[in-house]
Amino acid sequence: MRIVVDAMGTDDNPAPDVVGGVMAARKYGEDIILVGDQAAIEAELAKHDTKGLKLHVEHASEVVTMTDKPSDILRGKPDSSMHVGLNLVKSGQADGFVSAGNTGATLAVSMLGTLKRIKGIKRPALGASFPANNNPFLIDNGANAECKPEWLLQFALMGSIYRRCVNNIANPTVGLISNGEEDGKGNSLIHETAVLLRDSNLNFVGNVEPKSFMKGDVHVGVTDGFTGNLILKTAEATASIMGSVLKESLMMSPRTKLGALMAKPAFTKMRASISADDVGGTPLLGVNGVVIVAHGSSSAYALHSAVGQARLAIETGVVDAIRDGIASLPS
Amino acid sequence: MRIVVDAMGTDDNPAPDVVGGVMAARKYGEDIILVGDQAAIEAELAKHDTKGLKLHVEHASEVVTMTDKPSDILRGKPDSSMHVGLNLVKSGQADGFVSAGNTGATLAVSMLGTLKRIKGIKRPALGASFPANNNPFLIDNGANAECKPEWLLQFALMGSIYRRCVNNIANPTVGLISNGEEDGKGNSLIHETAVLLRDSNLNFVGNVEPKSFMKGDVHVGVTDGFTGNLILKTAEATASIMGSVLKESLMMSPRTKLGALMAKPAFTKMRASISADDVGGTPLLGVNGVVIVAHGSSSAYALHSAVGQARLAIETGVVDAIRDGIASLPS
Repeated sequence: MRIVVDAMGTDDNPAPDVVGGVMAARKYGEDIILVGDQAAIEAELAKHDTKGLKLHVEHASEVVTMTDKPSDILRGKPDSSMHVGLNLVKSGQADGFVSAGNTGATLAVSMLGTLKRIKGIKRPALGASFPANNNPFLIDNGANAECKPEWLLQFALMGSIYRRCVNNIANPTVGLISNGEEDGKGNSLIHETAVLLRDSNLNFVGNVEPKSFMKGDVHVGVTDGFTGNLILKTAEATASIMGSVLKESLMMSPRTKLGALMAKPAFTKMRASISADDVGGTPLLGVNGVVIVAHGSSSAYALHSAVGQARLAIETGVVDAIRDGIASLPS
Repeated sequence: MRIVVDAMGTDDNPAPDVVGGVMAARKYGEDIILVGDQAAIEAELAKHDTKGLKLHVEHASEVVTMTDKPSDILRGKPDSSMHVGLNLVKSGQADGFVSAGNTGATLAVSMLGTLKRIKGIKRPALGASFPANNNPFLIDNGANAECKPEWLLQFALMGSIYRRCVNNIANPTVGLISNGEEDGKGNSLIHETAVLLRDSNLNFVGNVEPKSFMKGDVHVGVTDGFTGNLILKTAEATASIMGSVLKESLMMSPRTKLGALMAKPAFTKMRASISADDVGGTPLLGVNGVVIVAHGSSSAYALHSAVGQARLAIETGVVDAIRDGIASLPS
């Protein structure tokens, strides 16, 4: 198995990207292809013990920045690390692609410039595994700000297939994220999508509210990319603010400071259990290849986890399963 | 000042509702009118020391339940505590109304059955003060699942007026809640609303993401009621789940248990600072009267805080200010 890591992805590239690739090569024993500025990658590699690891470097002369517009990248930077890396997947020289770079650019280069959509898929979507009980999977979490009901039906299908393949769940339950569980709740997109989901072969259980979704009551939560992205960002923001409030509160007196010191292992455990670093990245589903998108602020550890996500998706044949699934869906 | 408390509102009515009313009467010294089943209210009142408090009971023969459909209530339960209470406000016998009952029913009875919309207001909206730095105000948080850009412009106006009146902020900043701060981010509702906000006299600062909103970077966050409700519920769900994870983590060993015991005052402080109980309720803005909507699960303390919200809105003339503001907005 050969997995490409975009070495120019994170905000602090190439260090976290290269080190994440090294960690992944060591952990999984697979071939890792680091794509980007060859000199910079090799300089970073030289700092680490890479003996026996199957690491490869592929030069790309251009770098996509976080402020680049996706449409400009497509034609304006044809030799970007994204283009070069995704073309390795397209040509069969690699099996998957991981990037912590500009998400909009990754989507554009994947969907329009290189891999293209799977036949029958109207819009590829991003799926996020929540670091919670049962790892509920939210799709779309940001690829499509404005959606049609038929797209959401396809998101539900892709999410179900992903969980079936990757998590070995026979018939994943699907909930439609809404502002109430009753049938009448939601906007017209929700009402129309519910009709399609009820008529489908998917294991649709009805509307779910954020709490129910985050507690893992359903395997897949379906939503448009605008709402999904706001849910994800609100959850992240709340967790971050609560963490700060907790930290501040623990500093209120010598007694609480001492208590905090004693309870430190518990805080470490809590942080780990709500951290997204063990997930590492979110799959872009619906394109002809495995693509994992990570945060620009990813650590090397998170990057290495994202490679693990790519590996699982490759191993369990998610892309082929989506191809089969969409072909069998009445259009 | 006379404030109505719907005594049949909470899930455990009438106890929390009546006790909340008693607490509010004691704290604020205003007249509190408890509306609902007279016998039940008086039985609850008899358990408390109410000497010297300006408490009144107004009988209502019908009770709205959480499962009642708003449309059924409107004509089907004309003598509900909501109808009776809101009619007291309409006739000028009371200055404000507080209920922890069925939100949909409160909105319907307020907007269609009793107070009616303020002239020029297309859709009343619910505003929520977040228990965070600067108490950022989210509007709409659930009254209108499907919105037009012109409605969001009015929500922004009402939110600005509310913060100007109640929090004494001269020129409140307004952010449009979106999945990114750049101008192009968001769906078509966001794009079209941004144009209207830029052309308005409001202090519009552009798109804001949930984190920026929750940190208090803007005074007012504008959104449609579907998105707003999901943001509110996601924040609540995340806080609740994190609280559980923290509790569980602290139980991991004797050492952390002891640490938790020592740090207990800090946890109490944290809980208080992220609790919505000091806010107590959310104002329904855009109707001809002060209406505060509270959670069905409200405690007596939260109810008493909701009465405090009503009192502030009455005292600072929010309804008249919205009447003046909407009249001056180009339609």
